[in-house]
Amino acid sequence: MDIDTPSIMRRLREHHPLVQCITNYVSMDIAANLLNAAGASPAMVHDVREAGEFAAITGAVVVNIGTLSPPWVEGMIAAVAVARERGIPWVLDPVAVGATAYRRETVAALLPYGPTVIRGNASEIRSLALSSTEGRGVDSEASSADALGAATGLARSTGAVVAVTGEEDLVTDGERTVVIRGGDSRMPQITALGCALSALVGACCAVGPDPLSATATAMAMLAVAGERAGVRAKGPGSLRWELLDELAVLEPGALAGRVEPR
Amino acid sequence: MDIDTPSIMRRLREHHPLVQCITNYVSMDIAANLLNAAGASPAMVHDVREAGEFAAITGAVVVNIGTLSPPWVEGMIAAVAVARERGIPWVLDPVAVGATAYRRETVAALLPYGPTVIRGNASEIRSLALSSTEGRGVDSEASSADALGAATGLARSTGAVVAVTGEEDLVTDGERTVVIRGGDSRMPQITALGCALSALVGACCAVGPDPLSATATAMAMLAVAGERAGVRAKGPGSLRWELLDELAVLEPGALAGRVEPR
Amino acid sequence: MDIDTPSIMRRLREHHPLVQCITNYVSMDIAANLLNAAGASPAMVHDVREAGEFAAITGAVVVNIGTLSPPWVEGMIAAVAVARERGIPWVLDPVAVGATAYRRETVAALLPYGPTVIRGNASEIRSLALSSTEGRGVDSEASSADALGAATGLARSTGAVVAVTGEEDLVTDGERTVVIRGGDSRMPQITALGCALSALVGACCAVGPDPLSATATAMAMLAVAGERAGVRAKGPGSLRWELLDELAVLEPGALAGRVEPR
Repeated sequence: MDIDTPSIMRRLREHHPLVQCITNYVSMDIAANLLNAAGASPAMVHDVREAGEFAAITGAVVVNIGTLSPPWVEGMIAAVAVARERGIPWVLDPVAVGATAYRRETVAALLPYGPTVIRGNASEIRSLALSSTEGRGVDSEASSADALGAATGLARSTGAVVAVTGEEDLVTDGERTVVIRGGDSRMPQITALGCALSALVGACCAVGPDPLSATATAMAMLAVAGERAGVRAKGPGSLRWELLDELAVLEPGALAGRVEPR
Repeated sequence: MDIDTPSIMRRLREHHPLVQCITNYVSMDIAANLLNAAGASPAMVHDVREAGEFAAITGAVVVNIGTLSPPWVEGMIAAVAVARERGIPWVLDPVAVGATAYRRETVAALLPYGPTVIRGNASEIRSLALSSTEGRGVDSEASSADALGAATGLARSTGAVVAVTGEEDLVTDGERTVVIRGGDSRMPQITALGCALSALVGACCAVGPDPLSATATAMAMLAVAGERAGVRAKGPGSLRWELLDELAVLEPGALAGRVEPR
Repeated sequence: MDIDTPSIMRRLREHHPLVQCITNYVSMDIAANLLNAAGASPAMVHDVREAGEFAAITGAVVVNIGTLSPPWVEGMIAAVAVARERGIPWVLDPVAVGATAYRRETVAALLPYGPTVIRGNASEIRSLALSSTEGRGVDSEASSADALGAATGLARSTGAVVAVTGEEDLVTDGERTVVIRGGDSRMPQITALGCALSALVGACCAVGPDPLSATATAMAMLAVAGERAGVRAKGPGSLRWELLDELAVLEPGALAGRVEPR
């Protein structure tokens, strides 16, 4: 496993890729600020009247289903259709996909556009893995309760790189799997930090040599910045801004050794 | 008056109740992060296609009219209809209800679903008390300029517990009234902190023995955390994150003595 | 050039003008909190059912096209129509106007309502200046690549005061031009700070003697608060809350000398 995370991060800072986020209302602020701190250029453009036109000039598109409604789903489809057509990477964040029928239907409508990366927590990835293989009948790994099995199965059935965040962060393309180490135990107390990570995954995909390496780099950036922020943070409030501060001054070399084969 | 605020707060931390917030755009970030810091689990799910289905799996629903539009009102109605049907507590935050006809109409459409708690500032509660009693003709208390009179009248006419925040914070069910002490004079400079408090009221109602006790507990949590945050905060920017930090480490015993009969 | 910035700022703190912001989702939190810290009273009211009715009771209206959709555009038109009719100042922030046809069309629909102030970065102002003069054929200044030329041309063709933020901040009414000094080089890393500044421009217009003076005052407030915040801030995360803290305690006299003729 040879992922040159420092050089991907360096390219992110040099190219400031434009990342279109069609994301939930709760994550807007933190996702945009995290992209900005990391060196990318965020743009929240969601309406069908401009979402596709805008996607054409971006380095990556990020779609997050946290606060769905029909006009937003229309915009998502328009953006990912352009992304697919032009070979622009796009990331799917299937927030709480198991919770309602509307979420499952929306994800089912998005998946045919071939997301480059799917990022979620273990329960979201398991939920997706089960539904995406149901129609196919057989995939013992995806039906396993194990997040790695679900992620591997989902990666194989969709062709996407799948990232699972939780106590252990992992990324797989269905064949190769890597683990990312770091972070702070209080990071889940920062609402929508996972959504913001999905946006950063998009930014790295815009400059990365391949989706697996790019995704692992984004996760390593957050893991190291979060770990450092955690040293001084007293709670979730200070952890949030300390993390942005750390991300903005992170030196690429700090990522070395954070991504390991599993 | 015997409200065991520490034990309600302990249950909040143990059960991490899922709180569905259909709230205004400005409050999304702070409401979600405040719930998270307090130990609850926020979910912003507003569209009519899933709002009711989602409400069924929550511990409480919170409806805030700060940035209204018809699709959101549809979702609000769907969610509170399910809440009422299933006995799930729900909180109404009538932001600036007196400002426009659309707000008054929306609140009039929501009130028949029987909010468990109504939380607002003195002017919102007075405005609501007047309109909810207008049709009835006589309620001298509600027509009084005094917030307590308005709150008591509104509680009696709606059956809801009514919470008024301001220089003096009080909660009443129309018979019993309690006062909550604490806070910091700069808290009103944090936009949407009141909206976030309404969300916390929902979280406490999800685990509390009764709405009056739960509401008072939520208000006491914010009062103590705000007071402590205020010791170190230099202004509204630092007060916000210090408050989240304090809330996350608040020990339940600190609430003792903060809620008193009036 | 004789702009009494301290006295405009003093009036802002005395009158707490109500500022209606129809702004993008990303900027909601920071715009509202920045207005609050500065002494104004923010209100995000966007739907056509109440946007016009609400505008009538405000001190200023601020329209920002960052995350457009048809229902919001309807609300924008309703609000600025009332503003125009009643002589209430209104500010246009043409975010990324050059990026899509939908943005250009929306701005074209808004301009006839006569914005009091247009605030953007150099590229937005240039893009607007070109399109607003295209129909007229000749305006050599506006077609210049120079931001000042574009701003002057746009001010003349629209009758609005035009503010350009960037390495050099300037404000012009087409005849007089002033430059504002200060700030911190990391301020662009705070997402939507420009949008928040547009909201503050609205607040100052609500109390100012004239739009040029009011706009320059808002920009000077942010420049001084940002500069002071930058002394202690370690990065964009801390810069954001330090800036709010500084803004809340800023003494009007600190603005003296920050606005100079160009």
